[in-house]
Amino acid sequence: MTDAATLARRIAQGRGDEPAELVIRGARLLDLVGGGLIETDIALCGDTIVATHGRFEGRTTVDADGLIAVPGFIDTHCHVESSLVTPFEFERCVLPHGVTTAICDPHEIANVLGAEGIRYFLACAEAMRMDLRVQLSSCVPATHLETAGAALEAGDLTPFMDHPKVIGLAEFMNFPGVLNRDPGCLAKLEAFSHRHIDGHAPLVRGRDLDGYLAAGIRTDHETTTADEAREKLAKGMAILIREGSVSKDLHALIPLITRDASPFLAFCTDDRNPLDIAEEGHLDFMIRTAIANGADILATYRTASLSAARHFGVSDRGFIGPGKRADIVLVKDLARCDVQAVFAGGRRVEEALFADRKTVAPVGLGSVKSRRLAPEDFAVPERDGETPVIGVVPGRIITERLAMRLPRAAGQTRIDLDQDAIKVSVIERHGRNGGIATGFVHGFGMRRGAIASSVGHDSHNLCVVGVDEASMAAAANRLIETGGGFAVADGGRVTAELALPVAGLMSELSFEAVRGELETLRAAAKALGVVLAEPFLQVAFLTLPVIPHLKITDRGLVDVDRFDFV
Amino acid sequence: MTDAATLARRIAQGRGDEPAELVIRGARLLDLVGGGLIETDIALCGDTIVATHGRFEGRTTVDADGLIAVPGFIDTHCHVESSLVTPFEFERCVLPHGVTTAICDPHEIANVLGAEGIRYFLACAEAMRMDLRVQLSSCVPATHLETAGAALEAGDLTPFMDHPKVIGLAEFMNFPGVLNRDPGCLAKLEAFSHRHIDGHAPLVRGRDLDGYLAAGIRTDHETTTADEAREKLAKGMAILIREGSVSKDLHALIPLITRDASPFLAFCTDDRNPLDIAEEGHLDFMIRTAIANGADILATYRTASLSAARHFGVSDRGFIGPGKRADIVLVKDLARCDVQAVFAGGRRVEEALFADRKTVAPVGLGSVKSRRLAPEDFAVPERDGETPVIGVVPGRIITERLAMRLPRAAGQTRIDLDQDAIKVSVIERHGRNGGIATGFVHGFGMRRGAIASSVGHDSHNLCVVGVDEASMAAAANRLIETGGGFAVADGGRVTAELALPVAGLMSELSFEAVRGELETLRAAAKALGVVLAEPFLQVAFLTLPVIPHLKITDRGLVDVDRFDFV
Repeated sequence: MTDAATLARRIAQGRGDEPAELVIRGARLLDLVGGGLIETDIALCGDTIVATHGRFEGRTTVDADGLIAVPGFIDTHCHVESSLVTPFEFERCVLPHGVTTAICDPHEIANVLGAEGIRYFLACAEAMRMDLRVQLSSCVPATHLETAGAALEAGDLTPFMDHPKVIGLAEFMNFPGVLNRDPGCLAKLEAFSHRHIDGHAPLVRGRDLDGYLAAGIRTDHETTTADEAREKLAKGMAILIREGSVSKDLHALIPLITRDASPFLAFCTDDRNPLDIAEEGHLDFMIRTAIANGADILATYRTASLSAARHFGVSDRGFIGPGKRADIVLVKDLARCDVQAVFAGGRRVEEALFADRKTVAPVGLGSVKSRRLAPEDFAVPERDGETPVIGVVPGRIITERLAMRLPRAAGQTRIDLDQDAIKVSVIERHGRNGGIATGFVHGFGMRRGAIASSVGHDSHNLCVVGVDEASMAAAANRLIETGGGFAVADGGRVTAELALPVAGLMSELSFEAVRGELETLRAAAKALGVVLAEPFLQVAFLTLPVIPHLKITDRGLVDVDRFDFV
Repeated sequence: MTDAATLARRIAQGRGDEPAELVIRGARLLDLVGGGLIETDIALCGDTIVATHGRFEGRTTVDADGLIAVPGFIDTHCHVESSLVTPFEFERCVLPHGVTTAICDPHEIANVLGAEGIRYFLACAEAMRMDLRVQLSSCVPATHLETAGAALEAGDLTPFMDHPKVIGLAEFMNFPGVLNRDPGCLAKLEAFSHRHIDGHAPLVRGRDLDGYLAAGIRTDHETTTADEAREKLAKGMAILIREGSVSKDLHALIPLITRDASPFLAFCTDDRNPLDIAEEGHLDFMIRTAIANGADILATYRTASLSAARHFGVSDRGFIGPGKRADIVLVKDLARCDVQAVFAGGRRVEEALFADRKTVAPVGLGSVKSRRLAPEDFAVPERDGETPVIGVVPGRIITERLAMRLPRAAGQTRIDLDQDAIKVSVIERHGRNGGIATGFVHGFGMRRGAIASSVGHDSHNLCVVGVDEASMAAAANRLIETGGGFAVADGGRVTAELALPVAGLMSELSFEAVRGELETLRAAAKALGVVLAEPFLQVAFLTLPVIPHLKITDRGLVDVDRFDFV
């Protein structure tokens, strides 16, 4: 609700009865209806645009010098936790890239802390400068094949439904549960049947897709091919084109970005880390990449703003016009999307904007509750015949199901560096049962040492990949001491680390400091022989039992295609 | 909210685990994304589409025989009262034309009965087969220049806000009140600032338009030229292209209907009577007329459905796909929009559909509370110089401000048939003050008798246009006896009439019977010499003091340009 006094001020300044609070002078406005550029000032009153298409007087003026004004970008699906920083640092990191609205699913922290994690995100959202919208995590735990820190039923979610930062229900990743009419799934679908429900439907096609859509689910960000996208679009599903740090679907879906299809599209990042944001960018990177690869400019900017706003019912944005939220990005060149200035809710994005935010105390400190581990905890008993081995695919979260003959000794199955088969262990860390499962993984190229992570989708148990058990224990034990994070160990000693004490998922450092630590970690992993560009991201998805084909949780190896343990 | 059992049934039928309740077999589906035609069955479960793009088994099957399936049409702004029948007859009349959703503003009945009129429409909406959505009338009375039967302040509207049939606030026609920050207007804008607010902004341009939009108003249906529409679109206002019985803007706005602009457009009828619906059609007429005059076919159908749904946040429709409301129109030919069958909420539209509706008792019986009138009540004192005369423009609600030298006799100003200057009187009929104002009007061509109406926008006082005062009195008195309607009198005796006893606005007869009566009335008016095609519609807008230039209310002649009495 906007109070009458504020409305009166907007009307008066819009009409020109008094000078506008802020005027962006001499911009060229991208016309989202026709695609042209219109020379105009833009008048702002507080967080709202009040006049366009003219020359205006303002109490304060910012000279746009002919820069092109486009609506602020909307990330329609992201997990802030994947940036490894708190929501406050997340916005410091992405707002300069023009991302003025992010629709997040606090799925990671909810899997560790339950409703407390959602409350933390909502409290942060209220204190932030960007508009962070929070979808309510629909699938905590994601599956019955792992031990999470919490479980959220429909009744746990509905108390948040009317919070002004909440849109609806987040990605319904338990699509088998939907299709099989699992009562817990139906209860959530019922409770949110009058609200927006996000989808998650990788390779769901044909009648299964019909059933999934018939449940009232509206969007999908797991589409990886243009053919799959075309079926979903034709059936009325909005496609949220994703370019994360691991899942990269943009190139495959660029052919979709036409003027005709743009009302049915949006962009999202899902999981994107601060290194990629620094090196490539965020939605600005998606925009320039799409255009460079042949996407229509108007269709691309509509996808990044107006269409996204419409899919999620945030009808006050996605367009630069009177009455709309003053989320404005100034670029020199539309194709390059070279962001020169950003206004978020009418306020210029610069370091000072972040100085006086209300603080929110971090939650989930000390959330890694495992007992200390010893090298012998990682033993694997010998078995006859071939051993199943997870095959990592570089840059993909999907894995292959391999089988190898591995050496045996002293009643145990051993690693085999010649076949690049090393150990992977997942240790329950929520203080529930202390379970541990160990298997083998191929593709890291690691020749010595170990790496460990408390970020492991979706339950975020400890995951350790290693060549020697002493290093595995050292890396894992370090995470228990720091409350979670990433660690590299060699010769039984930790050689690099990044603490992520907020629920074992997020750092309390600045995003710049986290970037520095990640580079150190990358180098330390490379020193072990690791050949993967993003070893910690690949570790984080080894544990995700909703993505084919072979995964590992604290309860054992999972054959995702059968959705059961091996 | 949809209950879990219903969701489970939809999922099961969508997925094909059980046969669908109803299958429309062998349709060609218009792909709203790309514009092509796709051969497919359409599976329905209750009021919802559950499968498309395939061949399905159903418990019941309807053969589409290759007809083209398009989403049900959405009339985004209409006054049901202008159809002269109750909402129950309105849907019988328009559903066969493919109009499965109508967003109405009960502005007329609210001006007579206040909140009771809104309650009546909401009760009807809940019992109807089409989805009638009710916007809350924002401007009752429309102006301070007339006497209405009720006044609705913000506090009178907010109790209806959360009714499932309510979208938001109806056309904010008091745009001077908005621009001047009138406290009553601001209170309504504040109360609905988080909801959809419809606009009404004829010729509002430039900074006034900026101020009006800055108030949070989103749509306009009063745009009459493409140039005006282009400014509004560029500023982010949705244009609801109107083709009513009097206000006909379609031809001027057809050039707007392109694929690029279609996300920013919708169609509406505003005020359309059953004769026009019979002779021309409803939204189907707009669609075929637009396409015949060069509008892109895909853009036109999007405008009629998907875009309309998105503007008004009814995101469950406007598209034929699983999970969407089963509002489906079958046509033989897209360009001709020759409707062959209609499904509304999954039910086939045929006479039987209307048989078992819950009834709602009519309201506003006996609402014409004037004293009986005598010929001398219509006397106009003589005055010096020229007399202001309202100039009727055939087929337009705008009027001209004329001035004529009129004959005088016995201290009175008289009519002059040579100049086609006859009398027009408005009589307060809400039992408030019994006021009467009489002036002169040009353009009817009437040579004898009188016509009278209790439909007179927006206060719906009695309006009589006539050549002789005895006939004027006879026509007006007949409306007092019948509780309102239309009457034609000649030689002091009523020669034709249509009773509209529901608030003096709507008949209790079938729409077919009303059509017949209207034809009789037209003939009777023609017999008086009247040259206007729609004399009663023109009378109904003579009293509307928000449309330029010269109008008359129960309180006197109004110079709309000055927004004050002459």
